[in-house]
Amino acid sequence: MAAKKAKKSEKNTRTLPAVGVVGSGSFATAIVKMLLENCECVHWCVRSEFVKGAIELRGHNPTYLPAVNFNLKCLKLTTDINELVAQCDVVVLATPSIYLSEAVEKLYVPYEGKIFVSAIKGIVPKANDVVAHYLRDEFNIPFERQAVLAGPCHAEEVAMERLSYLTIAAGCTEVCGMLEQAFTSDFIRVHPSADILGNEYSAILKNIYAVGAGISSGLGYGDNYTAVFVSNAIREMEHFLEGIHEVPRDVNESAYLGDLIVTAYSLFSRNRNLGNLIGKGYTVKSAIQSMNMVAEGYYAAKSIYETSRAKGLHTPIIDTVYRILYEEKNPEKQFRKLSTILN
Amino acid sequence: MAAKKAKKSEKNTRTLPAVGVVGSGSFATAIVKMLLENCECVHWCVRSEFVKGAIELRGHNPTYLPAVNFNLKCLKLTTDINELVAQCDVVVLATPSIYLSEAVEKLYVPYEGKIFVSAIKGIVPKANDVVAHYLRDEFNIPFERQAVLAGPCHAEEVAMERLSYLTIAAGCTEVCGMLEQAFTSDFIRVHPSADILGNEYSAILKNIYAVGAGISSGLGYGDNYTAVFVSNAIREMEHFLEGIHEVPRDVNESAYLGDLIVTAYSLFSRNRNLGNLIGKGYTVKSAIQSMNMVAEGYYAAKSIYETSRAKGLHTPIIDTVYRILYEEKNPEKQFRKLSTILN
Repeated sequence: MAAKKAKKSEKNTRTLPAVGVVGSGSFATAIVKMLLENCECVHWCVRSEFVKGAIELRGHNPTYLPAVNFNLKCLKLTTDINELVAQCDVVVLATPSIYLSEAVEKLYVPYEGKIFVSAIKGIVPKANDVVAHYLRDEFNIPFERQAVLAGPCHAEEVAMERLSYLTIAAGCTEVCGMLEQAFTSDFIRVHPSADILGNEYSAILKNIYAVGAGISSGLGYGDNYTAVFVSNAIREMEHFLEGIHEVPRDVNESAYLGDLIVTAYSLFSRNRNLGNLIGKGYTVKSAIQSMNMVAEGYYAAKSIYETSRAKGLHTPIIDTVYRILYEEKNPEKQFRKLSTILN
Repeated sequence: MAAKKAKKSEKNTRTLPAVGVVGSGSFATAIVKMLLENCECVHWCVRSEFVKGAIELRGHNPTYLPAVNFNLKCLKLTTDINELVAQCDVVVLATPSIYLSEAVEKLYVPYEGKIFVSAIKGIVPKANDVVAHYLRDEFNIPFERQAVLAGPCHAEEVAMERLSYLTIAAGCTEVCGMLEQAFTSDFIRVHPSADILGNEYSAILKNIYAVGAGISSGLGYGDNYTAVFVSNAIREMEHFLEGIHEVPRDVNESAYLGDLIVTAYSLFSRNRNLGNLIGKGYTVKSAIQSMNMVAEGYYAAKSIYETSRAKGLHTPIIDTVYRILYEEKNPEKQFRKLSTILN
């Protein structure tokens, strides 16, 4: 154990810059845990004084992944994003997408030259756009100083230290290499990528497809159907990504297909659970209210549907989920119609 | 109901040829059920007089899918493959792969001009080859008179009439169209394909990957890992299929990816269950003995591994499963090694 600690601090002192995480949900908590495998200390900007106080008192996040115990000496907790950004070279943004603008618009300290990493799998409502575009257009952070953390990496399994694979997409190879070093550990393997937009969009799309898989399950469709649904979804995703940002990519890499599968199948997936409730007959409103976590797929469906329309893309699964979530269309009828198109 | 029956018999009289099914396992039983949605009668060659007598007595297969009740007036049961082949234009072979040669080598009636459809997802041990090659090489049945039934189509869900999608790959479009008509129903959709070998090999490979997914699950790997495993498996499958039979194909179609997913994830999958037992510490022998169904992936692993070696293909997942099943290698160590190659 002592040897392990010594190795960590040596590694850190030699090469790792100061890293901070913004957000206090389950994935943010998992990211702090991952980083502490390599970093002597992690800066952590949580949402409220209450959460900060609770972590300081108990040594764990009281609401998300409470089984993950932190050595408080290794955390620099704050509720002030400016304090965090001022002290860090790398800022990992891991709030729910709907709270991102609220957090980053408070920024007044200089952040030129710092790296911003998005672990957010959703659309920024204010910009009606993905995080990478929002950061570039509103904050002048070029892609060269951005990165995206992609899955399949459900936080609950990171908490249990079950071997998981992160894809890190970055605009420049140095940034990618540095992040690979910061995240690789006994239970985390890192796969590098240059496809920031593809990884970001696919992480958003998979939430919509997971809502759809959940609806079909709630309606009583079985395993045979779900497998067909997912195999159609990955082809639709490939078509969408090509329409948005055409670069050579293999959508069967883990960040695209793997993340889609884990989200569509895992019982940990809140998007799938939202869909399942709707398929079982809950209204959309009551299904959302009954969950105490944000299901990103709900918000994403609207924006992605509009993008698909604007680009003239053929996305029957996204359209179906959108119509159920936003146009009060009958899930059973919509899925019966969709089933005639799938193959 | 009367209208439905009338429609069925009209359809059948007009266009469907006489169809027979050879085999009495779960998928054979499901195929008989599927065909009876369109055919007034189905010929069914079962393995023994005992099974034949039990079906005649009870109206259902006593061992597999016992909840599926048949109208005995619509079945022409036999235990004699020659009787069946003599009376049928289309013969669906649905035995476990290890029993196929035993069944078809009894054939002495002429079968020229008849269509042979393989619903077998395994290697013929005697030929150490796939069914399509075996039928062509040993019985002079050309690909033009062959077809392959591909999934994702677990029999248990067909029994429940849950919407499922079959891919039918045939060497000629007329045969494909006729089979599409014979199988399409309220709960079965059919997708046509021309890729006989690709569909057959992928149905075999997916069983090996399902054994692998089961081993990893038995070893304690979680959902994040399984998703990465499957996303690597589909890429390995693509590479293997290209090495065997290079034609334009999209491995993300349901017959390839969908069937892989359903087999790797479904609790109905005997291949996954076999792997799971091995991962939990059972010896290979005791795991096989504890199951009362044949896990095709076990037999396939040896033949496919040898094919991969002979063709010089890079198939680390197949190699890993092979070494655990046939070389008594330690599953934990093998999967730890494999995990460093996956991405």
